[in-house]
Amino acid sequence: MTSKRTRVFTYDTTLRDGTQALGVSLSVQDKLLVAEMLDSLSVDYIEGGYPLSNPKDESFFQEVRKLKLRTARIAAFGMTRRRDVQAGKDVGLTALLKSEAPVVTIVGKSWDMQARKVLKVSLDENLAMIADSIKLMARRKRETVFDAEHFFDGWQANPEYALQTLRAAHDAGADWLVLCDTNGGSLPDRIAEAVREACTALPEAKFGIHCHNDCGLAVANSLAAVSAGAVHVQGTVNGIGERCGNADLTTVVANLAIKCGCDVLTEGALAKLTDTSRFVYEVANLNFQESQPFVGAAAFAHKGGMHVHAVRRESRSYEHMNPTVVGNARRILVSELSGVSNIAATVPEKFGLSGDRKAQKRILDRVAQMENEGYQFEAAEASFALLVRRLLGKERRFFDLLGFRVIVEKRGHGGVPVTEATIKIRVGGKEEISASEGDGPVNALDGALRKALDRFYPSVREMHLADYKVRVINPSAATAAAVRVVIESRDKHEIWGTVGVSENLIEASWRALVDSIVYKLSRDEERGRAES
Amino acid sequence: MTSKRTRVFTYDTTLRDGTQALGVSLSVQDKLLVAEMLDSLSVDYIEGGYPLSNPKDESFFQEVRKLKLRTARIAAFGMTRRRDVQAGKDVGLTALLKSEAPVVTIVGKSWDMQARKVLKVSLDENLAMIADSIKLMARRKRETVFDAEHFFDGWQANPEYALQTLRAAHDAGADWLVLCDTNGGSLPDRIAEAVREACTALPEAKFGIHCHNDCGLAVANSLAAVSAGAVHVQGTVNGIGERCGNADLTTVVANLAIKCGCDVLTEGALAKLTDTSRFVYEVANLNFQESQPFVGAAAFAHKGGMHVHAVRRESRSYEHMNPTVVGNARRILVSELSGVSNIAATVPEKFGLSGDRKAQKRILDRVAQMENEGYQFEAAEASFALLVRRLLGKERRFFDLLGFRVIVEKRGHGGVPVTEATIKIRVGGKEEISASEGDGPVNALDGALRKALDRFYPSVREMHLADYKVRVINPSAATAAAVRVVIESRDKHEIWGTVGVSENLIEASWRALVDSIVYKLSRDEERGRAES
Repeated sequence: MTSKRTRVFTYDTTLRDGTQALGVSLSVQDKLLVAEMLDSLSVDYIEGGYPLSNPKDESFFQEVRKLKLRTARIAAFGMTRRRDVQAGKDVGLTALLKSEAPVVTIVGKSWDMQARKVLKVSLDENLAMIADSIKLMARRKRETVFDAEHFFDGWQANPEYALQTLRAAHDAGADWLVLCDTNGGSLPDRIAEAVREACTALPEAKFGIHCHNDCGLAVANSLAAVSAGAVHVQGTVNGIGERCGNADLTTVVANLAIKCGCDVLTEGALAKLTDTSRFVYEVANLNFQESQPFVGAAAFAHKGGMHVHAVRRESRSYEHMNPTVVGNARRILVSELSGVSNIAATVPEKFGLSGDRKAQKRILDRVAQMENEGYQFEAAEASFALLVRRLLGKERRFFDLLGFRVIVEKRGHGGVPVTEATIKIRVGGKEEISASEGDGPVNALDGALRKALDRFYPSVREMHLADYKVRVINPSAATAAAVRVVIESRDKHEIWGTVGVSENLIEASWRALVDSIVYKLSRDEERGRAES
Repeated sequence: MTSKRTRVFTYDTTLRDGTQALGVSLSVQDKLLVAEMLDSLSVDYIEGGYPLSNPKDESFFQEVRKLKLRTARIAAFGMTRRRDVQAGKDVGLTALLKSEAPVVTIVGKSWDMQARKVLKVSLDENLAMIADSIKLMARRKRETVFDAEHFFDGWQANPEYALQTLRAAHDAGADWLVLCDTNGGSLPDRIAEAVREACTALPEAKFGIHCHNDCGLAVANSLAAVSAGAVHVQGTVNGIGERCGNADLTTVVANLAIKCGCDVLTEGALAKLTDTSRFVYEVANLNFQESQPFVGAAAFAHKGGMHVHAVRRESRSYEHMNPTVVGNARRILVSELSGVSNIAATVPEKFGLSGDRKAQKRILDRVAQMENEGYQFEAAEASFALLVRRLLGKERRFFDLLGFRVIVEKRGHGGVPVTEATIKIRVGGKEEISASEGDGPVNALDGALRKALDRFYPSVREMHLADYKVRVINPSAATAAAVRVVIESRDKHEIWGTVGVSENLIEASWRALVDSIVYKLSRDEERGRAES
């Protein structure tokens, strides 16, 4: 697409435009963590926020100065001066300067309709607002980015005027002219054409691109802009952002580096892409998007039997690239569509399963039956491993449940309920009864079970539950439908997922909990054997 | 992009390629429902499955013949004959004919490496396998589609041979030559170039395109192919499919119809796009993807105060199109980033809030505080409406909780626990105590509360819970972290969402449950007043 080794600068706006997304809200601490992660990915610019919009963004800029960033420069975002106000006296521009960010990004109108109808200013006043604002920043030695809002709609409506706004910013000293497809309504061909013409009109300027995904084309539009001459791409990690989101910087960067041969990020940084994506989901408290290109958990997952067979024979067959380049990995999934190849691929060698077609078939049938009941092993490899041990008669029984009782009781309208769990188990010949309070029923049950197991298996203290998810499987019956609970646990050695399904939320949680603990104890035993 | 009114045929493969997605499994009944929905969207072809791969797909083809489809033709999918087997004796091809599907799609290798290394046949035998298989179908009067697997990789590696496979299929009588980017690794420019050359080489053939989303470019690649001469696009509803999924047919179709001026779907059908998307998510039991282009719940949602202000003044400001064209709607969201404009826009006129800036500010502050605790009102408009009533002193207190107790008890290792809830409430001066069993704690609590309310408010019988979702808010503390419960309820008039947050799962569920019932009673009262 582009000539070899074009240097393309990356400008991340997860902390500003990304926080416009539904359900996303980041604390100052969250934002600082993300900034450090982006820096370790070697992103060139990190837009930290909009100092005037809220106190959180203001304090981010104070705190971020204390971080030692290696490659990234911090940018503060704001608007052109208000109409009829001197730039030096404008509250927004003052806040930008006060943020002490070395880079300042000023958004201004490039669409004549917007200037007239939304800002309600004359076209000349809009040009003056752009020029005055940029000039002030340039004079104060800030690296200055002009975000030309609605550039492509403006270009369509009045190309002459859209160009004038760019020229105003450029002449005032803007370091970057960034063309924004603010509504995300443009197609790649139109983007490429407009970028090309803007580059021709202002040959000394450096251009960037900022796309939104309203037509599902933000990545394609960003690539089209680079191939037409832009050398700076804006986006957010995982494409989080308002409406349909921004260009997903992880996808754009991977394409630029791997498919277009551009010089983007520093040597070796691309392998951090998957971790960066997952880290941002975690911090933003969003579910991973399994099917996300390059970095998704399913991006290199193989389910169909035929595919699995072929991918093992020749990886290029169903993989467009090596997953490790972006820090991801190939996964072979267990599912009802799987052929026997899948089962053999997921089970450890030592079980001697690879030659045993009958046992493979037995496992496959049992998996299919459990999937019909609502089980899914795709995020619960530990439950799958235990199932295989069970079906091969290699299960180790660490304890027997004799019974449990959970009571949640609340008095009065306000306040929180009290939760208590009692549990009785048998280990070898010995019975043990224990009780625990908890913040909720699962927490109380978990506490009571660990207490009961403690004197037999003290290593349960080393593990903790890292995540807990509930999914109603047949939503049409609501609270009486089956629920699937997935628990993620970890100790110092590893992270593992377990699953439980039942009509009863507590029972489903219990099943996932038991698998989690049994898996831990099994692994400890294996490790013990390996060490002795 | 394309000249005006090119007729583009739509070929949906949700029921075949879509079921390769992680976590997707459809029953025969599910598949029939989807087929009817696709037909009402006026899709041209519906690929129903792979008759040889499993009995479920086989019985789908029997059942689908009983449906009265208006526009859609049903296609069965299979592979070219096995090597060294006569086409008429090949089990796969026999199964295709036996399915009695009027359209048959045969996938064959177009990449020389694949033929040699995966099929382990000579390049000539591969051509013969293609020709024989297509010929058999054409002779049996099937409309025949040739899916040229890995066409773009094949084109890159050995363009001469890739073209020969197309020619073999065409000469054998294939009605459609569909070029597949099987690994999803191609960029739009390469797609366009290869399609253009294939069209030139075989000017009498009709071409289609089948893209995967491994580079986040499936939609862009499909559009590029159409602009280069393809007149048939394959994809799946919501892009569900293996790895990163297929081209999302909803996005492709919307772009073709709205942005590229193609003749796609019948008059008026585009308005069913959003319903189709949500229906498929429901049937496949997947969460909606809020940020999905065109059809997502957030696609036309506005959160930032500045944007909301502007969008109300001039919709083109932040909307690239009218959402109703695709059956979607504009949403104004309540969130901490919202300006006062958002609050005013979501609250009914009758509350007289639009002039009352002070009350608006009070609501905004309270929302920000609750969002810090983990509340989200974006999917819980009913809880938001009740909050506003409360803050304006217009809350109606239907009952007081005096207390509840939930007991979950299990005896022995196997079996299901018994769940019981007791509840005590006061309505006016009267106390009522009631108990209920349930499949789980929330179900039991819901049962007991309804029983207690029944003699005071018999209309609670009309409503039921339609969905129940649990989200851990701070996953790092696992089961002891706060949980957010969102309940969706419905009666004959409407559907409404409510939310509850607490460290205790039962308490969070209780809060969402109470809001759900109080909202129902409030609305009944309002409707009663309106009628009298």
